[in-house]
Amino acid sequence: MTAAIIIIGDEILLGQVKDTNSSHIADNLLNVGVRVKKILTVGDSKEEIVSALKETSGSYDHIFITGGLGPTKDDITKSAFLEYFGGELVLDENLLIELKLKFEERGWKFHESNISQAEYPDSCEVIPNERGSAQGMLFHQNNSKYFAMPGVPHEMEGILHSWILPYLKKESTQSYLKYISIGTIGISESGLSEIIEPLRNRLGEIEIAYLPGYYGARLRLTAEGADQSDVQKRLDNALSIFRDKIEKYVYSTKGDTLSEVIGYLMREKSLTLSVAESCTGGLIQDHLTDVPGSSDYFIGGVVSYSNDIKDKILGVELESIEQFGAVSSEVAIEMAEGVRRKMGSDIGLSVTGIAGPGGGTEEKPVGLVHIGYSDKKTSKSNQYQFGNDRIINKKRSAGMALGMLWKNLKEYS
Amino acid sequence: MTAAIIIIGDEILLGQVKDTNSSHIADNLLNVGVRVKKILTVGDSKEEIVSALKETSGSYDHIFITGGLGPTKDDITKSAFLEYFGGELVLDENLLIELKLKFEERGWKFHESNISQAEYPDSCEVIPNERGSAQGMLFHQNNSKYFAMPGVPHEMEGILHSWILPYLKKESTQSYLKYISIGTIGISESGLSEIIEPLRNRLGEIEIAYLPGYYGARLRLTAEGADQSDVQKRLDNALSIFRDKIEKYVYSTKGDTLSEVIGYLMREKSLTLSVAESCTGGLIQDHLTDVPGSSDYFIGGVVSYSNDIKDKILGVELESIEQFGAVSSEVAIEMAEGVRRKMGSDIGLSVTGIAGPGGGTEEKPVGLVHIGYSDKKTSKSNQYQFGNDRIINKKRSAGMALGMLWKNLKEYS
Repeated sequence: MTAAIIIIGDEILLGQVKDTNSSHIADNLLNVGVRVKKILTVGDSKEEIVSALKETSGSYDHIFITGGLGPTKDDITKSAFLEYFGGELVLDENLLIELKLKFEERGWKFHESNISQAEYPDSCEVIPNERGSAQGMLFHQNNSKYFAMPGVPHEMEGILHSWILPYLKKESTQSYLKYISIGTIGISESGLSEIIEPLRNRLGEIEIAYLPGYYGARLRLTAEGADQSDVQKRLDNALSIFRDKIEKYVYSTKGDTLSEVIGYLMREKSLTLSVAESCTGGLIQDHLTDVPGSSDYFIGGVVSYSNDIKDKILGVELESIEQFGAVSSEVAIEMAEGVRRKMGSDIGLSVTGIAGPGGGTEEKPVGLVHIGYSDKKTSKSNQYQFGNDRIINKKRSAGMALGMLWKNLKEYS
Repeated sequence: MTAAIIIIGDEILLGQVKDTNSSHIADNLLNVGVRVKKILTVGDSKEEIVSALKETSGSYDHIFITGGLGPTKDDITKSAFLEYFGGELVLDENLLIELKLKFEERGWKFHESNISQAEYPDSCEVIPNERGSAQGMLFHQNNSKYFAMPGVPHEMEGILHSWILPYLKKESTQSYLKYISIGTIGISESGLSEIIEPLRNRLGEIEIAYLPGYYGARLRLTAEGADQSDVQKRLDNALSIFRDKIEKYVYSTKGDTLSEVIGYLMREKSLTLSVAESCTGGLIQDHLTDVPGSSDYFIGGVVSYSNDIKDKILGVELESIEQFGAVSSEVAIEMAEGVRRKMGSDIGLSVTGIAGPGGGTEEKPVGLVHIGYSDKKTSKSNQYQFGNDRIINKKRSAGMALGMLWKNLKEYS
């Protein structure tokens, strides 16, 4: 089964909002055997919406439309649907009452402009939105199904998961599409390709993609076919051919994030963690706490932006800072040991570096980062030299710190 | 001037990587008077790339292509370009030497697969990439210019800012496009629309967009015309008509982030800040430290995930936690006061809440968040009830905490 996604939104064409909906939709569609072949982003204009609908007509089994719904944009999108699919706009009195109740319950004011959110083309089936006031719509045309959803990610995701994905699952599929997503850290996409490409002719009928990223490169194997178990077998077989050659870089073959894998290891080994961050400014702890239940092993941490805090809160010796500099292997280790001691955790992780654009010297340029690790047996540090971009330096430092933590957790006993 | 963007990448169609390039390109093009009208995302296949090139042919002044370049994907994209634009692939010996030197300098291994990165169609002008090994390309066809860039954001941005934007600036434009982006916090997009829409007929010939977001709603006014000063006048005039009605929610009319505006106020008033976070897990400090030079006013902070840390590091009374609960107005205030005292800053900001999915009770459900603020004169807290989604709760909490900080900073004297 194939799909296209149409994203409606001037704010995306103007670069003011990043589209995150299409990746969420595409990723989840794969699980029900639907593969996205094209994504189209157009503005909030009736003309452009109708032209996008025409462009996808007849070429895909399913078309997913997000955006253009909501109190301030409804008119344009719904009139585009009426022009393309036919039908008339009708007020759904029951929906209007429901909407008013929902607003009352949540203490929101029911604005006049919200009334239009109970009006829908009679050519569509209304898809309920439990997370907001703009409902979804399903249209049929030329053997294709068109699913329209609001653009607010939380509401789109609600409709997708509670209604559309179960609906698609019920449909029988004739072709199975499966993939393995392999997360690595400590090797580049080129490095992975140099190892795997020479083996290509032994890997059978699969697709391979090498994906770069701040949190390590990812490798994706994809296979498609009529027989579900054959598709899985082809993937497993291909992986088994090169797996030992990349094993030391692989943190997951199940699509987990590095933070999730760290969580599994922390639980498995009954360990607790604390973190001291300087140049990453809280980003490492933000990633760790994205994992539900992380409070079971993550105790807390310190963002020690000033040297004074490194001393006062973490107990780093001011002498070490004077002698070696705040960005040094010695201070990274003292920070990791200090946060571990102060917070009473089994493991301490630390980062100190120069994110830029200011603060660099000839000896210690922007992008220099030291990462420290401490547990009951050992303390150590790694040094990295990243580039000039502040935000990228924060991300790469956080990625490498999580990578160092993962590596040490694996070996921890 | 109009533009289309073509994004090449299976990883985006599979939902494994989010496209952030198109928003960066679109946002920056506006500043040189170029407006993106369409974004097309297609897979790493010669057929799909050629078909996307055909689709944009003749309809736009400029076409920006990202992705599909780099050691593992070069062949497909370059052969698509050769098919569409004509010409032959030639090895640029000088570029090859430069590439080898660049790799050597950075201590990277020069893989055999990198040689192809010195081969380019002779139908294009090569655009230098100082941040990586895949160069950009410029093709001309049917009065349109096609700019091809690698997909790695850092490299794409380097080429865009150092070469393409200056190139476009030199071209004369006949129409000026300007916009004002108004950042607000504490009011919804519907709320903004209810205030502004009744005044619409007095606002003149401008476009208005209401954009929702976790860090507050944004309002965008856009105007276009042949006379630059008239375009600016129309925007200023429209804003002046409703500005006083929304003034208390507006933190910027210049496109700044909330963290940047907080930075301006901290410097202006010579204040220092520290932060104590529970459910946001470091996200607030991550945002604050995205601002270059934030170390001038941001001293540091604590992520107090366990109650023990709230007591040991922040000095929150265990009695308060027992009596009121860790998620309470009292504890939020004690955290803000505690971090301010411990870190020795002028201002303390705190968040305590239940991000979910676990940890909720009937009395204190998932999504309940208290935000605390403390300075030399006053301590206070605000309570919010968000939803069930952990990541969204983190973001909305961080947004509201930054909003509360901003509001108090404005009034600080």
